[in-house]
Amino acid sequence: MHIICLDLEGVLVPEVWINVAERTGIEALRATTRDVPDYDELMRQRLSILAEHDLRLPDIQKVIASMGPLDGARAFLDRLRERAQVVILSDTFYEFARPLMQQLGWPTLFCHRLEVDDRGRVVGYRLRMPDQKREAVQAFRRLNFTVLAAGDSYNDTTMLAAADAGILFRAPDNVIREFPDFPAVQEYDELSNQLDRAWARLSKTDGS
Amino acid sequence: MHIICLDLEGVLVPEVWINVAERTGIEALRATTRDVPDYDELMRQRLSILAEHDLRLPDIQKVIASMGPLDGARAFLDRLRERAQVVILSDTFYEFARPLMQQLGWPTLFCHRLEVDDRGRVVGYRLRMPDQKREAVQAFRRLNFTVLAAGDSYNDTTMLAAADAGILFRAPDNVIREFPDFPAVQEYDELSNQLDRAWARLSKTDGS
Repeated sequence: MHIICLDLEGVLVPEVWINVAERTGIEALRATTRDVPDYDELMRQRLSILAEHDLRLPDIQKVIASMGPLDGARAFLDRLRERAQVVILSDTFYEFARPLMQQLGWPTLFCHRLEVDDRGRVVGYRLRMPDQKREAVQAFRRLNFTVLAAGDSYNDTTMLAAADAGILFRAPDNVIREFPDFPAVQEYDELSNQLDRAWARLSKTDGS
Repeated sequence: MHIICLDLEGVLVPEVWINVAERTGIEALRATTRDVPDYDELMRQRLSILAEHDLRLPDIQKVIASMGPLDGARAFLDRLRERAQVVILSDTFYEFARPLMQQLGWPTLFCHRLEVDDRGRVVGYRLRMPDQKREAVQAFRRLNFTVLAAGDSYNDTTMLAAADAGILFRAPDNVIREFPDFPAVQEYDELSNQLDRAWARLSKTDGS
């Protein structure tokens, strides 16, 4: 019995902060952990930029809704959900993901959440737990599921390593080079093929 | 951050074996663990009845598809999935649940599976793990989710007890009497209200 764990940003939907930066014209929101390595500092910086521009949650959700999922993502995910259990593991926030989850047909999502005041201002954030992607994969395996996982970046590699099979999807070259054990694919049909192959291989082992 | 765990049969869809018995006219398939307390013996009996009547998986799936979800279940579940993560925890089998999952919009389901030969004959079954509903709830709580759970029968009570809040839905009187600590409701709007109340109460505690 299998669960497929997918990263969200870069795999099914665009990178949220970068696209919010582009669509709002606020260049400072483009910063990532490459620019500000401390995640908490980066998030506090992002929230203060939102406050400065008086961008509230409903405004940001409108921007995010307008991004839509990546081309082909909905069809890929629909096909996958017809034959496997899929749980999306993401380090985004429920409030940001919501408009995209609607466009993806409300798949199950494990992520974090924002603290929003009664005027819609984003005043903080709450990480559910550290390294939650890897922890979720390990929890599913302890529940006797065989876990297949796909992601695009560094913060997915512990999840891919913890899974019975891990696949890189549209990963940057340095990640592909650093993790040569994970197959690396660029398109949804290749990802489907890799998942099928891993599924077939693992089914021989677990008899399912 | 919340996950809502729902039982399947009796909560979102009809009891599968009883309805297969009714729709095929095979009375012997009505037997439950009340008649044959040993689950493995009951399942072997069921599979031998299926073989005797040459009922193969595609035949049974057609019967199950024709049942459809319970009245109002799809609307209830759709509303729930728009605002919470929902995982269905059931002791049914993926192969049986599939036609109903399609009619429910492919929510995430944790259950068991059948062993089917290449001619579609059900030759065995594989339980993923014992007491998997309770184990899943405990796993979600270890992932720092607050868990709300609803079910209708004895085999749900360990899941309800393990959750942060447990609710009985259309439970038989003896279960309601034996577990007076769980609120017991009959209709989806009451279940929604109970989930909302539990959510509000628990959000005060966990700050979410």
